[in-house]
Amino acid sequence: MDNLGIVFTSEVIGTMLLTLLGCGVVANVALTKTKGFAGGFLLVNFGWGLAVFAGVTVAYISGAHLNPAVTLGLVANGATEFGQGVPVGPLSILVYIGAQLIGAFIGAVLAWAAYKKHFDAEEDAATKLGVFSTGPAIRTYGWNLVTEIIGTFVLVFVVIGFGRNGDPSGLAALGALPVALLVVGIGASLGGPTGYAINPARDLGPRIAHAVLPIKNKGGSDWSYSWVPIVGPIIGGVLAGFAAIPLMPILG
Amino acid sequence: MDNLGIVFTSEVIGTMLLTLLGCGVVANVALTKTKGFAGGFLLVNFGWGLAVFAGVTVAYISGAHLNPAVTLGLVANGATEFGQGVPVGPLSILVYIGAQLIGAFIGAVLAWAAYKKHFDAEEDAATKLGVFSTGPAIRTYGWNLVTEIIGTFVLVFVVIGFGRNGDPSGLAALGALPVALLVVGIGASLGGPTGYAINPARDLGPRIAHAVLPIKNKGGSDWSYSWVPIVGPIIGGVLAGFAAIPLMPILG
Amino acid sequence: MDNLGIVFTSEVIGTMLLTLLGCGVVANVALTKTKGFAGGFLLVNFGWGLAVFAGVTVAYISGAHLNPAVTLGLVANGATEFGQGVPVGPLSILVYIGAQLIGAFIGAVLAWAAYKKHFDAEEDAATKLGVFSTGPAIRTYGWNLVTEIIGTFVLVFVVIGFGRNGDPSGLAALGALPVALLVVGIGASLGGPTGYAINPARDLGPRIAHAVLPIKNKGGSDWSYSWVPIVGPIIGGVLAGFAAIPLMPILG
Amino acid sequence: MDNLGIVFTSEVIGTMLLTLLGCGVVANVALTKTKGFAGGFLLVNFGWGLAVFAGVTVAYISGAHLNPAVTLGLVANGATEFGQGVPVGPLSILVYIGAQLIGAFIGAVLAWAAYKKHFDAEEDAATKLGVFSTGPAIRTYGWNLVTEIIGTFVLVFVVIGFGRNGDPSGLAALGALPVALLVVGIGASLGGPTGYAINPARDLGPRIAHAVLPIKNKGGSDWSYSWVPIVGPIIGGVLAGFAAIPLMPILG
Repeated sequence: MDNLGIVFTSEVIGTMLLTLLGCGVVANVALTKTKGFAGGFLLVNFGWGLAVFAGVTVAYISGAHLNPAVTLGLVANGATEFGQGVPVGPLSILVYIGAQLIGAFIGAVLAWAAYKKHFDAEEDAATKLGVFSTGPAIRTYGWNLVTEIIGTFVLVFVVIGFGRNGDPSGLAALGALPVALLVVGIGASLGGPTGYAINPARDLGPRIAHAVLPIKNKGGSDWSYSWVPIVGPIIGGVLAGFAAIPLMPILG
Repeated sequence: MDNLGIVFTSEVIGTMLLTLLGCGVVANVALTKTKGFAGGFLLVNFGWGLAVFAGVTVAYISGAHLNPAVTLGLVANGATEFGQGVPVGPLSILVYIGAQLIGAFIGAVLAWAAYKKHFDAEEDAATKLGVFSTGPAIRTYGWNLVTEIIGTFVLVFVVIGFGRNGDPSGLAALGALPVALLVVGIGASLGGPTGYAINPARDLGPRIAHAVLPIKNKGGSDWSYSWVPIVGPIIGGVLAGFAAIPLMPILG
Repeated sequence: MDNLGIVFTSEVIGTMLLTLLGCGVVANVALTKTKGFAGGFLLVNFGWGLAVFAGVTVAYISGAHLNPAVTLGLVANGATEFGQGVPVGPLSILVYIGAQLIGAFIGAVLAWAAYKKHFDAEEDAATKLGVFSTGPAIRTYGWNLVTEIIGTFVLVFVVIGFGRNGDPSGLAALGALPVALLVVGIGASLGGPTGYAINPARDLGPRIAHAVLPIKNKGGSDWSYSWVPIVGPIIGGVLAGFAAIPLMPILG
Repeated sequence: MDNLGIVFTSEVIGTMLLTLLGCGVVANVALTKTKGFAGGFLLVNFGWGLAVFAGVTVAYISGAHLNPAVTLGLVANGATEFGQGVPVGPLSILVYIGAQLIGAFIGAVLAWAAYKKHFDAEEDAATKLGVFSTGPAIRTYGWNLVTEIIGTFVLVFVVIGFGRNGDPSGLAALGALPVALLVVGIGASLGGPTGYAINPARDLGPRIAHAVLPIKNKGGSDWSYSWVPIVGPIIGGVLAGFAAIPLMPILG
């Protein structure tokens, strides 16, 4: 494999683990008859945080973006190289984002397989969709967008801070811990209104999976909302990348 | 930027992240119709602890006080220099505390924006104030003060211990973990009576935000209690700084 | 002791701690009159994760497999040496798996002893069995198998990633943290349908203990299901080992 | 201060923090009208675990035993030196244990002060005692003893494993994390029947505080049970120390 192939594969695998474990914890908490049914929001937060932990550990070699908002945020921040010495450019950006979408789709399919019989037993269509994609607690696109922008800003801004502070290059298993904890924290603190997509691939990939999988009585995939967890995180990530530039004496 | 400007900016950003995520988790647990509604006290504790984690990571360069009680505790302990080689003195102390208040105010405004529709939907004024500022479970100023003094003493005393024990200078992302865990622990253990301000900026900044923001049916900002989470933490922090001096053979 | 004796003893002790603490947390959450009764699924997840933490810490010298699916997954991945320079071969594989089963049996007996009076007080036979062994939330062997395969695949695949990324050889106490967090995450995310055995020894050893211990009104040991948490994890682990081979440019 | 004075002071301070935060979290979960009321067993487990984290961080220089069962377990294991080069002997053992008892007493008094008004508001005497000392869920001294022996065995045995594996000497803030996590795990898994004293000082010091403090309607201090959390942990710790000797090829 050449370096572009390596980062592509790395992002596919990492994002697959992200949504397999991430959609999995929502399935566990939300679907009927599971052992973690109604296990609480902190369980969801740890599930997603440790999904990030697993994904970042495995995808370390590509920089473990696993998220177009991170990729684009780093570009906005002025990055000239991604993982494996791959130069930043239209092609490599496309490779990263494409890989993230593909990985997120596969992970959601696997989460569905792991909870197949619980999907069958679940009667509420909205609950089934909620395992795959985020949705707003109170639907108002403008404010939902604000929430996603703020959440993703925090994610990308602090991640840029990790780049300065930590030295994860030699210790990836621990190097994945800070971003995992950060995602636990963003979920706990900013996940209340929209369920914290903070990642267009994490939301769109599983939503496509929901649309194409043969799920019983699944209802619609709520495409009318689907642009919010794409546009919001991209705005938030890019803003964070730009905002960090004059702050590099502090973050860099 | 000169060094004073750098530490100012660093403390603003760090404290902003602190109250954005910290007030955010309270909003999530307390406001109506959120996804984390009634998510439990441990969720609140992790939310605030990981808010500290994010803030300290970003503000590493200024020493990440994010808290006037820490700044004054270090002064009482005999510090001669803050972050970036800034000498301790009336001006630099003012810069730190001013930055912390400004950052705490901005963070609370952002948390309000993230949860805007849930503030609108919430009918209880006390719940809304509780997102911003702390309040006592049983109102008795003297004992409330005692609780805040003890909690902040633990915070500053153990933080001084970190200074000796750890070597966070080269590994800030992990270096932020111990203080984050400490704040999870103080919240879990000593947060029951007063909601653990343990930080005058964390309480006053958001309280001012509550007073000036156009929140529907917001009620008063409980200024009669507001001195407790200022005075208590300052006493606790300064006491810890003094107490640590003769103990430097152990802590230092 | 020769090296084979050392790894045998190490795996016995480590797996003993694993099921002592792991079965213990289920006893705490499930059995009547305990202090942790109905403590929630996240408590179970942390209990098992920290059981892994304790077991891996103690059994570091043998590589801390504690799980036949890990042992066989490493073999499928092409390992030529286990811990202590023991060469991979039929004998050493048997020693690892035998030690894991013996350790898992002993640990379950100790967990039973620790909760003896709560077993006596418990009236529901299925609850008692649930302390020892896993069982499906919805019994359909095929899909239960799928869930166990997926969960164990994630475990072994990410563990192989740790081998590349981390450098746990000199820092075992921290080296045990990543796998502990991983198990917290797999439990939270994929534990809903089958209770995440993801380890044949963890399930079979305690099931044998259940069968032979003099537990009051214990009912059957559900041998009809017992092959699922053996076969599923072995398939998942071996698949992960094979899948990782072409991915060694990323994982290795 | 000479070295004996240093280790004495260190153990007093560390154990004080341990019971201040540890008894504090029980107060928060158990006493009426607190913000963490009925917050769940995992909250208690994290509270105690992070109490260990704070105490061990501060008392690093004396080896941070904070527990007579650890001190005696290390003696049984053949230790010849404690922290600061203090030689093991009757005097130094007495200094460690005396300091632990004094610290545990002071910490409990501080926890009571922090929750003073909630003690006043609490009507149930057993709940008040439960903040200070452990008690059995099902009172049967023999089996309660077994539970305490097993729990403390795990604590001391794994701590001896940390001594080999980790290298906490230069990184105490992280060095305190493994034992904190271990205590979270032991609590989650083995705390159900007796509330996991696993430390004679943690139980006896606060029990004495309960006996002498002017707590309204406090009822008796349950001295009839008080020997169990002393004798059990000592047996468990000493057994672990002895058991580890032939296993030093693995643990050492």
